[in-house]
Amino acid sequence: MLDDTRLLKQVLDDLAKMAEPFILVHGGGKRATELGRALGVPQKMIKGRRITNTATLDIALMAYAGEINKKLVAGLQARGVNALGLTGVDGNMLKAKIRDITPINYGWVGDPDPKDLNVSLLKCLLNQGVIPVFCAMTHDGCGQMLNTNADTIASCLAIGLADHYAIKLFYLFEKDGVLRNVNDSSSMIENLHLSQIDALIEEGVIQGGMLPKMANAASAIQQGVQEVLIGSAPNFWGAIETKPKTATRVVV
Amino acid sequence: MLDDTRLLKQVLDDLAKMAEPFILVHGGGKRATELGRALGVPQKMIKGRRITNTATLDIALMAYAGEINKKLVAGLQARGVNALGLTGVDGNMLKAKIRDITPINYGWVGDPDPKDLNVSLLKCLLNQGVIPVFCAMTHDGCGQMLNTNADTIASCLAIGLADHYAIKLFYLFEKDGVLRNVNDSSSMIENLHLSQIDALIEEGVIQGGMLPKMANAASAIQQGVQEVLIGSAPNFWGAIETKPKTATRVVV
Repeated sequence: MLDDTRLLKQVLDDLAKMAEPFILVHGGGKRATELGRALGVPQKMIKGRRITNTATLDIALMAYAGEINKKLVAGLQARGVNALGLTGVDGNMLKAKIRDITPINYGWVGDPDPKDLNVSLLKCLLNQGVIPVFCAMTHDGCGQMLNTNADTIASCLAIGLADHYAIKLFYLFEKDGVLRNVNDSSSMIENLHLSQIDALIEEGVIQGGMLPKMANAASAIQQGVQEVLIGSAPNFWGAIETKPKTATRVVV
Repeated sequence: MLDDTRLLKQVLDDLAKMAEPFILVHGGGKRATELGRALGVPQKMIKGRRITNTATLDIALMAYAGEINKKLVAGLQARGVNALGLTGVDGNMLKAKIRDITPINYGWVGDPDPKDLNVSLLKCLLNQGVIPVFCAMTHDGCGQMLNTNADTIASCLAIGLADHYAIKLFYLFEKDGVLRNVNDSSSMIENLHLSQIDALIEEGVIQGGMLPKMANAASAIQQGVQEVLIGSAPNFWGAIETKPKTATRVVV
């Protein structure tokens, strides 16, 4: 989405029309990979996750927290939305634990816990009419920045705020929803029950990048998030007030 | 300072001991120049100021707002300081006007006005115990990020907050203060009166990067900032509570 100037413009226009406060969470993996190539730092992925050595962490900081985050914030500001860019380190918004080096050493990668969300500061910003724009970085509290999956951050934010607000969590990706047959958009699963997930993984319907997204979606709906939807941006924005044209709803 | 790991550690240690709330403003020009070289984007300077085309703006965003800002914030967080990284676009903290293209076209460079500081949001953060860490970027309010001199941002923050707090503005650089003879540290000017500035410029005592720094220092002391000091980091931190071992005090 970040690479498609026209789509991105449309999404920012639609976000600016939203009546409810929102939090935007973004990644930027494709840009990080490009930047790594330009700087001669080859990017290594295992199971769709980036191996983050020190040079790659710097690249992620530059791409996510620098270039992409500030351009999104500037785009929202231009539309009258008082956006403010954040990583987990800013205001200690979200701390994470560095991932175990076994079975795979992912390097500077962190897994956050919704309990470590700085809810009071986040509420204070929301009360000021600020729209937080998070990028996919956290910290360990001891001076180390950590690369963190954007879907996981979104899920942490949703769960951590669910006691304070009625939260809807939208996962945006390139498809209209979870498709039984990836080549047939009419095969979208409208209501995906948690009990179906294991079977869908076994059948290969849920695979690759959908695996962590689905785990995060499941964890959110189990921990007090009101609604979890997975779909594509252009279908979503009606959904803010009512329901999307099409999307997969994850249900307990 | 940012390149000297030991000095930087010491400065962060000292900052963490400060009893008063503070705002840190940083640049990162040397890192931006390195990154430009690595990416094959030559950096062009005129009178100590960077010509900022689109590729150079992206580099500044990556270096200042991404890598350097987040590492400083993480370093302060590790020391128990609830730092939060900001550029002028975040929360619309500081808007700027793009600089006239005559006599020199500096590109995406902006000059901010203290009147455009978002004082209410900044006060709200300070009231929450948050320590803002600004990097040298602003925006034009219409979606365009702008490269902005860090000394100017510091001066804008000091002037914009002077009606609300008793503000001390410290400019840190590699010398102990303004020296009459750059090779003789005993030639430091202890009290630099605004009336002396023109003559010091003519004599060549104030030159190069000191020119904009001095203009910003003068503008701050004329617009309600309580104290403006110019000196080197290691001499400063006693200064927070009392006065620095050595530094140049700019006085009306």
